[in-house]
Amino acid sequence: MDLQAAFGTTNQIIKNAFKGITDEMQMCIQNCTLCHQVCEQTLSHCLTKGGRHLEPSHLKALIDCAQICTVSADFMSRDSSIHSSVCGACADACLACAKSCDQLADDETMKLCADVCRRCEESCRKMAGQHH
Amino acid sequence: MDLQAAFGTTNQIIKNAFKGITDEMQMCIQNCTLCHQVCEQTLSHCLTKGGRHLEPSHLKALIDCAQICTVSADFMSRDSSIHSSVCGACADACLACAKSCDQLADDETMKLCADVCRRCEESCRKMAGQHH
Amino acid sequence: MDLQAAFGTTNQIIKNAFKGITDEMQMCIQNCTLCHQVCEQTLSHCLTKGGRHLEPSHLKALIDCAQICTVSADFMSRDSSIHSSVCGACADACLACAKSCDQLADDETMKLCADVCRRCEESCRKMAGQHH
Amino acid sequence: MDLQAAFGTTNQIIKNAFKGITDEMQMCIQNCTLCHQVCEQTLSHCLTKGGRHLEPSHLKALIDCAQICTVSADFMSRDSSIHSSVCGACADACLACAKSCDQLADDETMKLCADVCRRCEESCRKMAGQHH
Repeated sequence: MDLQAAFGTTNQIIKNAFKGITDEMQMCIQNCTLCHQVCEQTLSHCLTKGGRHLEPSHLKALIDCAQICTVSADFMSRDSSIHSSVCGACADACLACAKSCDQLADDETMKLCADVCRRCEESCRKMAGQHH
Repeated sequence: MDLQAAFGTTNQIIKNAFKGITDEMQMCIQNCTLCHQVCEQTLSHCLTKGGRHLEPSHLKALIDCAQICTVSADFMSRDSSIHSSVCGACADACLACAKSCDQLADDETMKLCADVCRRCEESCRKMAGQHH
Repeated sequence: MDLQAAFGTTNQIIKNAFKGITDEMQMCIQNCTLCHQVCEQTLSHCLTKGGRHLEPSHLKALIDCAQICTVSADFMSRDSSIHSSVCGACADACLACAKSCDQLADDETMKLCADVCRRCEESCRKMAGQHH
Repeated sequence: MDLQAAFGTTNQIIKNAFKGITDEMQMCIQNCTLCHQVCEQTLSHCLTKGGRHLEPSHLKALIDCAQICTVSADFMSRDSSIHSSVCGACADACLACAKSCDQLADDETMKLCADVCRRCEESCRKMAGQHH
């Protein structure tokens, strides 16, 4: 199976597995999962790239965001009674990471990461019941 | 944006973010990420369902598999020098979880989870350099 | 080395490793780490025990609390700029878990878990800058 | 309560919570928990320090080790049927991290981290049933 076919199957599986969850929460889970993956990958890119990409606060922002995104997705998957608190913390981490990536936005990988973080922040704010 | 469009965009983003990684490893990362999500969701289903679904060894198998799958994906994302050890442990967790889900395969959610675990196990074994 | 000696050495090591961090934050990191361990162990106890211990909302409260406690400790260890958001979410999870354990407080393991969760909640609220 | 008193209480609580687990496994759980904390703290130290401390493979070794140590401890806490696989992967991560810290052993923080990693590796190898 090639990657494209694998992605198609994946989407179908996710839709079946998450059938008890609202569309909005499903979307937020997917945004968090994607943001986790992109932050992990961007961290790896920054470590290899060196220079300004190795600024401590930047690396910490990526590590923070990657870590809380997966937790936020898990709390929603479990339909946890306190998922909104975790989504709120996740939104804060996404915003901090997006702002940090903006500083290096002449690098396309950073620009992509900033975009993904902002998309994730937006849906987490909604799940947290916070106005943007 | 509806879910279908979101998935399309997601796949494109993942392909861009992971461009430095081989197709086989990318596929394994996606399998682990999917397996994590499905196990989390299946755990939630089992907790609600009750009865045989609440057997301790079954719940532990789901918790184990969900936890190690995300770690395995992260080690590959970082192109860690010891990713093969973690992929091997992940394959063991996937197999144990698939076998546990087989016991309840008259429930479609369990059958789906078993299938996803077996797909993940297979690709993790390859990344671990283990023969099936 | 016996367990007692090991604990003594451990405490010495932690004090050396965390020397750049305030006493209050160190204490909160230790409370979160302990709460994580106790919740994991209590979850295992509940799965074995069965009956009322298997109530979905109770198991979810333990899983939630175990997961966010370790993340809260990590954010403080990294001296993350958004650690207060995560400590706030952690305090909410600790409180929910303590209340859930209170329902089974005739079981000593549950009573211990509730106490540990409340101690952790209190220090996390302080780190979050929230009044109790 | 001061830190010393808190540590004393902590040890007592851990001993009560983990009473169903063998002394050897308890010790390994504590070693993994400590190694996780020290690696997180050492990572933070390296990010601040800069220079040779920012070498990609070194930072990855610390991130790897911190992540798998906590998972290894969780698998033992749950008395998971596949804890030995995860302990084996954890031992590999600890060894890689210790070797990486050895390169910077003129820095005391690195020397401490290498020692803690080696102690953790040793007990994980035993739990994995692997000869050293």
